[in-house]
Amino acid sequence: MEMNIALLPGDGIGPEVIAQAVKVVEAIGQKFGHQISFREGVVGAAAIDATGDPYPDSTHEIAASSDAILFGAIGDPKYDNDPKAKVRPEQGLLRMRQKLGLFANVRPTFTFPSLIHKSPLKLDRVEGVDFVFFRELTGGIYFGEPRGRNEQGTKAFDTNVYSKEEITRLARMGFEAAQKRRKLLTCVDKANVLATSRLWRETVQELAPEYPDVKVEYEFVDAVAMRLIQWPKAYDVLITENLFGDILTDEASVISGSMGLMPSASLGSAVKLFEPIHGSYPQAGGKDIANPLATVLSAAMMFEYAFDLKEEAELISHVVNESLAEGVVTEDIADGGKAYKTSEVGDWLAARILA
Amino acid sequence: MEMNIALLPGDGIGPEVIAQAVKVVEAIGQKFGHQISFREGVVGAAAIDATGDPYPDSTHEIAASSDAILFGAIGDPKYDNDPKAKVRPEQGLLRMRQKLGLFANVRPTFTFPSLIHKSPLKLDRVEGVDFVFFRELTGGIYFGEPRGRNEQGTKAFDTNVYSKEEITRLARMGFEAAQKRRKLLTCVDKANVLATSRLWRETVQELAPEYPDVKVEYEFVDAVAMRLIQWPKAYDVLITENLFGDILTDEASVISGSMGLMPSASLGSAVKLFEPIHGSYPQAGGKDIANPLATVLSAAMMFEYAFDLKEEAELISHVVNESLAEGVVTEDIADGGKAYKTSEVGDWLAARILA
Ligand SMILES: CC(C)[C@H](C(=O)O)[C@@H](O)C(=O)O
Ligand SMILES: CC(C)[C@H](C(=O)O)[C@@H](O)C(=O)O
Repeated sequence: MEMNIALLPGDGIGPEVIAQAVKVVEAIGQKFGHQISFREGVVGAAAIDATGDPYPDSTHEIAASSDAILFGAIGDPKYDNDPKAKVRPEQGLLRMRQKLGLFANVRPTFTFPSLIHKSPLKLDRVEGVDFVFFRELTGGIYFGEPRGRNEQGTKAFDTNVYSKEEITRLARMGFEAAQKRRKLLTCVDKANVLATSRLWRETVQELAPEYPDVKVEYEFVDAVAMRLIQWPKAYDVLITENLFGDILTDEASVISGSMGLMPSASLGSAVKLFEPIHGSYPQAGGKDIANPLATVLSAAMMFEYAFDLKEEAELISHVVNESLAEGVVTEDIADGGKAYKTSEVGDWLAARILA
Repeated sequence: MEMNIALLPGDGIGPEVIAQAVKVVEAIGQKFGHQISFREGVVGAAAIDATGDPYPDSTHEIAASSDAILFGAIGDPKYDNDPKAKVRPEQGLLRMRQKLGLFANVRPTFTFPSLIHKSPLKLDRVEGVDFVFFRELTGGIYFGEPRGRNEQGTKAFDTNVYSKEEITRLARMGFEAAQKRRKLLTCVDKANVLATSRLWRETVQELAPEYPDVKVEYEFVDAVAMRLIQWPKAYDVLITENLFGDILTDEASVISGSMGLMPSASLGSAVKLFEPIHGSYPQAGGKDIANPLATVLSAAMMFEYAFDLKEEAELISHVVNESLAEGVVTEDIADGGKAYKTSEVGDWLAARILA
């Protein structure tokens, strides 16, 4: 197969972890006889520094004309504490999501037996946890208008807005995923307060009869924030709006004890994007110590979701599990054993694929 | 002292737990020579059933003309899954908060040594946790206009709005609380996306120099959702907007393993309200099994925050700790020991106060 992959490494540790995913993807290409070409674009703080724009047109052209995107991470503290900054790295991310139509962020949470002891939760709560969030990614209060200040600057406002269509396309993805899993869908909203949430709940209620094999539960976002910690095993597929999803998927990411390994996919109408859920960790950037496994597993998701190549995806997961079993890991999960460099882990995985 | 206390028991287990708080408050009154009178009002589903209005004027008059309010819980599942319901119990709660000007919800999280083993978190994460949220309660997306649907009903919208004044008065409470505690204030926002959050951050930054002894940290809501579980000990005082506070305080409530004991206060310009953080648990209503301790400890907060009577507050906390130590507790925390009835726990606490 021919594959055109856009690389958007971004900021902090982004470039280093993307470089390891590239090694792995190239090894897969070699092994399975795929023709894989890469093109790279700047995004985030790196793009502001280079072009003044966190998502320049040149990057969009590369991304939009690719078959899939591998994304690193963005964000730089120098832009965080200046509320009046005119350009921020995050604007690039948001513009990218919207221009590429990436309306669904898919975030699985599952456990790695060898890392589960790192979970802040007790073993009986976290063993066997396996759920996936479908977060709406191009609507809601992230993009709604009007937003801004009054003339004197003493009042600020944002608008949360959702259409039935936006909810429907995201919800259908959730229903379909539930059908392939344990057939439980949880619609997370705040229908006791928000008009948008009532439209979410109503829309999901209307769709439910089309998926008679899926049990649908409706739960308020505050209750989910609790139950995710109390009984994370209770969940299978969760669907929710953009802001709730931002908060809850990050909360969920600490459950398994293996945040450095959690991949994600952003799906939409055309191109699909894959990225680790962790941030840009600027403090660790350039030191060759960052854990590349989440990005490598995001590349595995890419083979499965973007190219329907399950065997390739499974081989990547398999060698990642081998690296864990054999202790070829970075310092964050080395647990007193030898700490490998980011680049060494990448080399090892690529070599193992070709072995 | 003379005290006029409004009782708003609400729904589900509300009436039962309030009844125990009344026993305790009366015992305190007798012991310390206070003249305490109670007036009761309906609120929530109970009020809809009785009057068609979840917060009738008669209840508001009682609440507004009292020195303090003891509130139970509201919510009934029969109103939850009907997104088109015209009247909902929660509307009563929201109207009450706004009409009484209860703009700050104060939610402490702390641990009880005898219950800490019930936490879903590992002991080393939760031991010694002691933080308090100040959640803005009468602004933001809960009340902003416009909110509703377009004509065809295919699009819904809500408005998040904050003024500098609303932020300032809440933030000052947080700063002052931090000064009396460990002097760390965390401003929780989403300033990388929301205009309202940027006003929050800017306003807090402007106030900070007035409190030079307080260290201020700014953290995104998604990061706090993670760190609350990873390292809850990192926090001291957190301030945040209404919706973020709703989600994060509920998340925080599961940390200590003693949710059935967590009290809260809602403060404002005039009257102050005290309530347990747990819900109305309709399934348990009327069975005399609900844990009354959170409501009893809310009454303790009332003596301290509404009447500045520290000794009274401490005596209540003291007898609650005795009931825990001696196992005079309801089935949810009986742990295989004898399970006392709700009413028995209340009787025991009142008798102990007078002993
Ligand atoms: C960086 C930020 C704008 C972004 C978001 O809020 O969506 C991030 O938190 C995420 O979840 O991808
Ligand atoms: C019942 C609901 C409207 C309410 C809220 O969202 O404020 C509740 O969750 C709370 O936190 O007191």
